[in-house]
Amino acid sequence: MWLKTSCDLSFDITGPIPFVLMMRPRSGAQQWIAREEYRLEPSVPVFEFTDIYGNLCQRLIAPTGVFEVRTSAEVMTSDDTDQAFGAPFVEIQNLPNDVLSYLLPSRYCESDRFHDMASEITAGERLGYNQVAAISTWLRNTIIYCPGSSVVPISAAEVNSKQIGVCRDLAHLGIALCRSLSIPARMVVGYLYRLEPMDLHAWFEAYVGGRWYTFDATQAKLKGGYVAVGYGRDAADVAIYNQFGPAIYPTTQTVGVECISG
Amino acid sequence: MWLKTSCDLSFDITGPIPFVLMMRPRSGAQQWIAREEYRLEPSVPVFEFTDIYGNLCQRLIAPTGVFEVRTSAEVMTSDDTDQAFGAPFVEIQNLPNDVLSYLLPSRYCESDRFHDMASEITAGERLGYNQVAAISTWLRNTIIYCPGSSVVPISAAEVNSKQIGVCRDLAHLGIALCRSLSIPARMVVGYLYRLEPMDLHAWFEAYVGGRWYTFDATQAKLKGGYVAVGYGRDAADVAIYNQFGPAIYPTTQTVGVECISG
Amino acid sequence: MWLKTSCDLSFDITGPIPFVLMMRPRSGAQQWIAREEYRLEPSVPVFEFTDIYGNLCQRLIAPTGVFEVRTSAEVMTSDDTDQAFGAPFVEIQNLPNDVLSYLLPSRYCESDRFHDMASEITAGERLGYNQVAAISTWLRNTIIYCPGSSVVPISAAEVNSKQIGVCRDLAHLGIALCRSLSIPARMVVGYLYRLEPMDLHAWFEAYVGGRWYTFDATQAKLKGGYVAVGYGRDAADVAIYNQFGPAIYPTTQTVGVECISG
Amino acid sequence: MWLKTSCDLSFDITGPIPFVLMMRPRSGAQQWIAREEYRLEPSVPVFEFTDIYGNLCQRLIAPTGVFEVRTSAEVMTSDDTDQAFGAPFVEIQNLPNDVLSYLLPSRYCESDRFHDMASEITAGERLGYNQVAAISTWLRNTIIYCPGSSVVPISAAEVNSKQIGVCRDLAHLGIALCRSLSIPARMVVGYLYRLEPMDLHAWFEAYVGGRWYTFDATQAKLKGGYVAVGYGRDAADVAIYNQFGPAIYPTTQTVGVECISG
Repeated sequence: MWLKTSCDLSFDITGPIPFVLMMRPRSGAQQWIAREEYRLEPSVPVFEFTDIYGNLCQRLIAPTGVFEVRTSAEVMTSDDTDQAFGAPFVEIQNLPNDVLSYLLPSRYCESDRFHDMASEITAGERLGYNQVAAISTWLRNTIIYCPGSSVVPISAAEVNSKQIGVCRDLAHLGIALCRSLSIPARMVVGYLYRLEPMDLHAWFEAYVGGRWYTFDATQAKLKGGYVAVGYGRDAADVAIYNQFGPAIYPTTQTVGVECISG
Repeated sequence: MWLKTSCDLSFDITGPIPFVLMMRPRSGAQQWIAREEYRLEPSVPVFEFTDIYGNLCQRLIAPTGVFEVRTSAEVMTSDDTDQAFGAPFVEIQNLPNDVLSYLLPSRYCESDRFHDMASEITAGERLGYNQVAAISTWLRNTIIYCPGSSVVPISAAEVNSKQIGVCRDLAHLGIALCRSLSIPARMVVGYLYRLEPMDLHAWFEAYVGGRWYTFDATQAKLKGGYVAVGYGRDAADVAIYNQFGPAIYPTTQTVGVECISG
Repeated sequence: MWLKTSCDLSFDITGPIPFVLMMRPRSGAQQWIAREEYRLEPSVPVFEFTDIYGNLCQRLIAPTGVFEVRTSAEVMTSDDTDQAFGAPFVEIQNLPNDVLSYLLPSRYCESDRFHDMASEITAGERLGYNQVAAISTWLRNTIIYCPGSSVVPISAAEVNSKQIGVCRDLAHLGIALCRSLSIPARMVVGYLYRLEPMDLHAWFEAYVGGRWYTFDATQAKLKGGYVAVGYGRDAADVAIYNQFGPAIYPTTQTVGVECISG
Repeated sequence: MWLKTSCDLSFDITGPIPFVLMMRPRSGAQQWIAREEYRLEPSVPVFEFTDIYGNLCQRLIAPTGVFEVRTSAEVMTSDDTDQAFGAPFVEIQNLPNDVLSYLLPSRYCESDRFHDMASEITAGERLGYNQVAAISTWLRNTIIYCPGSSVVPISAAEVNSKQIGVCRDLAHLGIALCRSLSIPARMVVGYLYRLEPMDLHAWFEAYVGGRWYTFDATQAKLKGGYVAVGYGRDAADVAIYNQFGPAIYPTTQTVGVECISG
């Protein structure tokens, strides 16, 4: 399906502040960016680079005053998201080198402390995709998904103790559980068609059966319509904007996803 | 200035053929891509990757029949192209690691055989930018620039013997001469505002005074309005389309650059 | 000074286990590896790759039985470790792209939660090197350095609450404090000449004044004799061995550093 | 088999000269470096980096006077070199991204001009490994292998016209012929056990059946005992030493390969 995504941010800047934005989706195995727009108001010099995960990042200094970032894209993405029950666990020795770092614990995914819990959740499951599916189902049944319930990112251990979280939190706990079973898992931020309420979204991918598969514990059924903007080990790597110094939040953030063709 | 660039290619494909396209400009130090469009007709799966020079490349299999690629972009680029007479030669030991490979000879730039000639052309010049400027002036005065005079790329040595060439040929000879003096030089393909006749363009950059500078021996005066699409050692690296198997040429190729603001 | 370093590990393996080792130091700006030895007993196939931080990693499957890894190196390293009081803070916009990721929080360095504490510790200090030096002094005066006091890595927040730790723990807290002030900081593991008691060591580097500087809160005075083996965001990235599945510890681990010349 | 390789170079330097050396073999799929030594006399600061092909390169400035480089390594390499008659041609669309650049013409391999000749040489062969084997056999039967017959690298077209060459020349022609058939091919420099006369060696690899295979048209029979030091598109990328400015040749170059175990 063809989707038109958009994300507009507006900031009220009190003094020049360096930003690193991550708001330009890249064409990849699962999506093709046919049109893309990225406007800054006022216009400032921007330096774009590729980070260690392959994301396009935009560096700039936001000037004092109102600063607006308006992005949109037309993206071809598949109608359905691939699922693969039975896809096997990949032995560590057979993982591609660049997948290995997604086995390690990270800021918000303390996978070094979840082995017992993950083993229990996936007891009896066939190794691989089915384990991750069991984790996703467990998340959906156990952690209350409450959009808007947190502002500051919290870690998998904290999510597990609160038993409630936003999309990012469920993804963090899912990732930590996967990694504790030696299944590579990574965070994705982006858009989801028909997300309720509409907002930027976060989900996770696990590497089984020789490729990455999408999992989303916030949705009752895995549908199509995902548009990835950034990949990383967890939310620390994939903030759509990182600004340095005192925290600044957008005065407005408007996100849209519409279908523009069958 | 804000430019709108476009390049449309149409092919008549007689059997499925793998293509690697390089038609998506990237935002960089000198240009900001504010809007970008990339359409394929018919639509086919595309895998995009970043090559060793940092260019975005699109892999696909063109199906039998008419195959059209339509791209356009709105780009902020500077009104003037930086020049820096006096910018010094950078000692090899001070070059960044990733610049070193632009000192080596490549397919169309046999820099290992141009040392004497380059020394003669630049005799008396201050080391660095002025040497490259002398090479560029020499090219402009010596090699007849004749758009459309070649189809198959030829090498610097061949250009030098023919004394005539297209933009690509002048760039190749310029690059070979620079490298023979231990000045890193690279090929750029892209667009130039007000190029006559309008077409895709090629020029070269040399690394002096700690950064890359633009040189274009096809133009009497170095103006602004350059939009880079690909960088490489020479034309072998930066074909806007590489197709494998029997050679195929576009049935139509339409290139446009217009100014969309002051 | 010329140092000979060695690290021998012996494991008792109960079933084939995949390992990723990081035990081969690389020549770099601060050290030159003139001789290097890396033996496995029994000999098994090894695949070496470079991770995202530039470390050389060795992948292998350890077979059942006694498995021994014996490494040694002769390294030229400087007699003194550079210090640079007064070296300025680097504005975010001027940091090299590949340094940016060392500003982000990571598994064991929750820098997103240390801003107030770091501001207090560095109050009145000149921005840059002096801030980091103040952090290092504070660590030395505040956190009890107790080699051997922890086995499982703990995070900066945990270290801060325990007020005691091993070299790794002090480094984690130092890194978290630096990053919370927008100073890039990274973990280093390796060897230190005359470390008491001799063991593998960990310290941290901070990026100020345009380069990385070494800090080590476990030492009363910053001397020379450091040999780096791995760099990363924190201990999660630079384990000298990562094995997957149930935890395995060496039955013996022997580390040596001796001076082999003036 | 375990081999001990060594390569000692001695230069007579008349003024400080920047060098880029490529003399440190890396452990890889086919070889394990168990011991390695790299000495410079006099000792100078060295900066090591990884080039775009993954080779370790050492940058330094050789001082005036006698400058000696002495390297040796103990390497585990296989007793036989893999061959795979019947291994299929890999369709372009299935090649890994990082293999694609080995399809392009390069300085000494003008593959854009060898298609007809390559088709003739491989007429009737099954696509893939057998085509490359036919090219290798043709080279052995056609081009006179004459160690020591050339100093300056010449290109595949020149080799083809001279019908005589050193190892590097045969490899260049083999690579050009492979690429002209859309088979990725690359140059390797390194050591070969029992090479007569003993010297540094060059051969080529072709990518068929999903991996790189070794070909060596200088040898009547493909045996084991290869130790790779550098990989690249052709000799321009894999000089064991690149020095800039007026050409300098070693006053002595001593190469050795001995077997140190069954």
